[in-house]
Amino acid sequence: MSEIKVTVVSAHGEEQRTVTTGTKAWELFAEEKDVIVARVGEELKDLSYELADGDVVEGVLIDSADGHNVLRHSTAHVLAQAVQQLFPTAKLGIGPPVADGFYYDFDVETPFVPEDLVKIESAMRKIIKENQRFERRVTNDDDALVELADEPYKVELIGLKGNSAEAAEGASAEVGAGELTIYDNINRKGEVAWKDLCRGPHLPTTKRIPAFKLMRSAAAYWRGNENNKQLQRIYGTAWESKEALDAYLHRLEEAERRDHRKLGRELDLFSFPDELGSGLPVFHPKGGVLKRVMEDYVRQRHIEEGFSYVGTPHISKDGLFHTSGHLPHYAETMFPPMEFEGSNYQLKAMNCPMHNLIYRSRGRSYRELPLRLFEFGSVYRYEKSGVIHGLTRVRGFAQDDSHSYCTPEQAPDEVKHLLSFMLSVLRDFGLDDFYLELSTRDPESDKFIGSDEQWAVATNVLEDVAAETGLDLVPDPGGAAFYGPKISVQAKDAIGRTWQMGTVQYDFNQPHRFELAYQAADGSRQEPVMIHSAKFGSIERFIGVLVEHYAGAFPPWLAPVQAVGIPIAERHDGYLKDVMAKLTAAGLRAEVDLSDDRMQKKIRNAQLQKVPFMLIAGDDDVEAGAVSFRYRDGRQDNGVPLAEAIARITEAVESRSQV
Amino acid sequence: MSEIKVTVVSAHGEEQRTVTTGTKAWELFAEEKDVIVARVGEELKDLSYELADGDVVEGVLIDSADGHNVLRHSTAHVLAQAVQQLFPTAKLGIGPPVADGFYYDFDVETPFVPEDLVKIESAMRKIIKENQRFERRVTNDDDALVELADEPYKVELIGLKGNSAEAAEGASAEVGAGELTIYDNINRKGEVAWKDLCRGPHLPTTKRIPAFKLMRSAAAYWRGNENNKQLQRIYGTAWESKEALDAYLHRLEEAERRDHRKLGRELDLFSFPDELGSGLPVFHPKGGVLKRVMEDYVRQRHIEEGFSYVGTPHISKDGLFHTSGHLPHYAETMFPPMEFEGSNYQLKAMNCPMHNLIYRSRGRSYRELPLRLFEFGSVYRYEKSGVIHGLTRVRGFAQDDSHSYCTPEQAPDEVKHLLSFMLSVLRDFGLDDFYLELSTRDPESDKFIGSDEQWAVATNVLEDVAAETGLDLVPDPGGAAFYGPKISVQAKDAIGRTWQMGTVQYDFNQPHRFELAYQAADGSRQEPVMIHSAKFGSIERFIGVLVEHYAGAFPPWLAPVQAVGIPIAERHDGYLKDVMAKLTAAGLRAEVDLSDDRMQKKIRNAQLQKVPFMLIAGDDDVEAGAVSFRYRDGRQDNGVPLAEAIARITEAVESRSQV
Repeated sequence: MSEIKVTVVSAHGEEQRTVTTGTKAWELFAEEKDVIVARVGEELKDLSYELADGDVVEGVLIDSADGHNVLRHSTAHVLAQAVQQLFPTAKLGIGPPVADGFYYDFDVETPFVPEDLVKIESAMRKIIKENQRFERRVTNDDDALVELADEPYKVELIGLKGNSAEAAEGASAEVGAGELTIYDNINRKGEVAWKDLCRGPHLPTTKRIPAFKLMRSAAAYWRGNENNKQLQRIYGTAWESKEALDAYLHRLEEAERRDHRKLGRELDLFSFPDELGSGLPVFHPKGGVLKRVMEDYVRQRHIEEGFSYVGTPHISKDGLFHTSGHLPHYAETMFPPMEFEGSNYQLKAMNCPMHNLIYRSRGRSYRELPLRLFEFGSVYRYEKSGVIHGLTRVRGFAQDDSHSYCTPEQAPDEVKHLLSFMLSVLRDFGLDDFYLELSTRDPESDKFIGSDEQWAVATNVLEDVAAETGLDLVPDPGGAAFYGPKISVQAKDAIGRTWQMGTVQYDFNQPHRFELAYQAADGSRQEPVMIHSAKFGSIERFIGVLVEHYAGAFPPWLAPVQAVGIPIAERHDGYLKDVMAKLTAAGLRAEVDLSDDRMQKKIRNAQLQKVPFMLIAGDDDVEAGAVSFRYRDGRQDNGVPLAEAIARITEAVESRSQV
Repeated sequence: MSEIKVTVVSAHGEEQRTVTTGTKAWELFAEEKDVIVARVGEELKDLSYELADGDVVEGVLIDSADGHNVLRHSTAHVLAQAVQQLFPTAKLGIGPPVADGFYYDFDVETPFVPEDLVKIESAMRKIIKENQRFERRVTNDDDALVELADEPYKVELIGLKGNSAEAAEGASAEVGAGELTIYDNINRKGEVAWKDLCRGPHLPTTKRIPAFKLMRSAAAYWRGNENNKQLQRIYGTAWESKEALDAYLHRLEEAERRDHRKLGRELDLFSFPDELGSGLPVFHPKGGVLKRVMEDYVRQRHIEEGFSYVGTPHISKDGLFHTSGHLPHYAETMFPPMEFEGSNYQLKAMNCPMHNLIYRSRGRSYRELPLRLFEFGSVYRYEKSGVIHGLTRVRGFAQDDSHSYCTPEQAPDEVKHLLSFMLSVLRDFGLDDFYLELSTRDPESDKFIGSDEQWAVATNVLEDVAAETGLDLVPDPGGAAFYGPKISVQAKDAIGRTWQMGTVQYDFNQPHRFELAYQAADGSRQEPVMIHSAKFGSIERFIGVLVEHYAGAFPPWLAPVQAVGIPIAERHDGYLKDVMAKLTAAGLRAEVDLSDDRMQKKIRNAQLQKVPFMLIAGDDDVEAGAVSFRYRDGRQDNGVPLAEAIARITEAVESRSQV
């Protein structure tokens, strides 16, 4: 028995170990129950992997991103095993891990019903309890085809192996680019209880699945192609602990409660009429209030920050987009052209080319720079039907789009200005937990334009400015657009989800293509630096995020109705109408509930509508010239004199109070 | 010699006259030098017309609309006569009167140059002085073809006579539907000095042309068809007096000085980049200020008037427009469809169908009515290239578009509300000279939908409301859209030109087609009355009108730059920067001219830019904490303490002062 040397990597650093030949990875981590697979070099391996001389080995924890994937992939196997126990004619599709869970597709005669999922879960629990071992076995195409002859979809996958990039990608969880492997599930008696064509790696045993749940079933085409057979997909999730699973289910429930599509209906904010087409939202009066308040706010802020409000049309001859370089590359994201008078007109998918026309509509001097143009640019982009989602992924949206044109010397201050402006906007909307992402070019790729120096200078500026904010900066190497690096702001909402917000984006491409220039102090002709920036990003998407962040209970300054008057009896209607008229005159959005409902029902309705201030009036209030406040959280404050009531609401609105 | 009876109509009433057979019309008006032709029944006749028994005859004054046409048509003959004197090979096209003037087309070898026009004018003056007589002569096709064999275009017109509606229209000034006539110009010797194929009528003699001027020449295709030969057109004008001619030329000069396309460039307000396509304006920073102030104003006003701001996309599947009935009828005014995912998407040309979707997004009760929806709806309409004109006729524009949905009982108040709202908006923009136009259906036509009662009720409402305003109401019978009657507001600008502004338009069509309904107080399901209204009409067009109305010298509340600081010497720069910062902090649009120009040049520049307030500062001002005002009209006001200066400007802005 000879010895080999391996390096063990952990949070504490690297450690050189000498072990005997034949040592398995699990032996390195015997004391670490949370390690479920090993990273050897760049690759993930089963813990049963036999170490080789020189290996650099790291234990992968179950609660890491890779750990979650392995856990969920193994749980998918257990699911498939359980399904084939209960439905012996079920044929296997594929079963990969996905965000927060996994799925497995089955060819079954009848779609699964909820009761099936209960039975399957129960069978899965039994398999887990049995502590079956996941055992990797290398095979070859010919053997595998015989062995899996009963599984037509697996057979198809074997046939696809390495055939084309697309096929390899579709089948990657099952058949890797390398050798073909099968994972056997070995029961206590040492028998193969079940098996699956699979790249792995997997948990050592089924008992290492701490917590799982099946979520739902749905139809899905084989390999995502609607010309193929429809299979039945079961979605599930698995976590490192019962607590983590519960927390996840709670997050899901919260997310569902906050779903802006549902709240948009309930609060009568917006809709997505079928008549218009997919991804084209319509704002109803109450959603229009949100939209207006946000537009007013962000336009005013832009003006205060030195931007000029400009206006450009929604269509242009396509030549403009060829000049900018968006066509032909970007053609599939744009709506198809409208041909007339011998030209192709395109609905715009971006505003920058039109702002460039304003820039060059006359000569510019360095004295005018930075020139900052801003508009609500409604743009249209062709998103695939499958990805359209409420307001957060639409086909038509308004960007609060700005372009700063400045001298190279001004660029650092301009970036700093844009970034702090953006963060202050988000803070006013109750978002204050951020990190930044810095997207840079891949120096190996030739898709990026601009000189090495341009990239280096701009990337340095972004890094420096980001550092000054004190926020975490997450690198995104290679993630930049081809024309320049960018910083994007990522904001966490009330339930901890991260949303990508605005961006500050350098552009080395368009100034050159549009031949933008300014006369420098020395009289020479120079090219300005162009910086794109959107604060909200898309007004529509931001409204969607806000609805979810606030769960529809908007702070007073954003609330579509800020105060609703609720008369205790009909005889108080007139008094409250006067009160509300005073509020309206003070610029507040107030109305009286004059419906036939009883008072308690009116309070309930106002709560459902999440109105910040309910102003209730009865005989005492009328006599005293007062109102009784009731807040969304149920607190009550009786007999508030009218002047004070108005002042209180006005103060909450003007201070943009978050309560 | 027998007697005949005629009726003479004049401003004083009707008078029966008995005259001898053979009496000419001029004999009735011998004392009235301003009568140049006679209206006999419905037709205009030369004064040499021989009266017939029973004729109803009215003298047509030279300064009336008909009188102007005859004067200008006769002047066109004199023009043609002069041209053929000077250019004997010139062949005649047609020469009709047009708005404010006339033209005549000639086939000549080389285009006319300005010096030619001077010579032609001189020749015309000679012909006028000669007092040649216009003499009507009836002929027939065969004779005319021989007589005019040298005039190929006239020959072609004779051939067209009565052939088709189009041909008849094109040639109507030359060959009427009735008998063919030639007008001879008879000189003092009784010779035919010149002649032209013409319907007439004409002045009695050339001396009755009091004042004329040739304006310019331009190329024009024979009969407006670009496949035909290019002729040379000379434009001229003629008036009842030298004073009227001068006033007209002054108006022209004023209109040119006020041309919004020219001012838009000079004041850097907007442009029409070729890259985008025709009729698609772009608003530069200064034009963007105008746009924003107007948008803010009109949105705020709508909210105060009980409208809800809503938002809808710019495109829709075409089914929506089939539901509304705009397609297929309106197809040629819409941009061509974008086909994808098996649907045709249309750029919207109107917002109403989308507002209807908001209306019917949930059940409506009579308690919610009137429901008033408002948005800045950017619409795109295909206008022919030839009619596109600056901002006043464009292909893409934003309507301040509203739709009121109400019960039939509420309709009169709603119309009244809309009309007074609209007039008050226009008054705030300095327009206060209005009349109204009432467009109603043609009871004979079957293109109109809606019941007789609907039309009668709605037309009565519009009439009553119009009467209440005290404004003139001009009927436009048959001019209604097929779906309902409307009132449109016509406003006169600073130089007396009339512009059509907003409209209040009933719609009997869409509520039905969209199955709009509300639950009435008695629980029954009822169809609401729908009323379209736009206050500005189109924001773009309104900006164009305002630029011309104010000749670019906008009142302070609209001025892109409200105050410009002008330092007497460089050492006053810092002081004025502080002053301007205070103005900016007070919400004003202020800047300092820090260019290298000298003070007088800076004042001149500010005047050219039509900035309402120039704030000049020298040593005395700095010491006193004051500024010296200079206004656009040259008035000056020295040593105004800073606080007062800010108050003065703020007051002018907030009061929407017109100065």
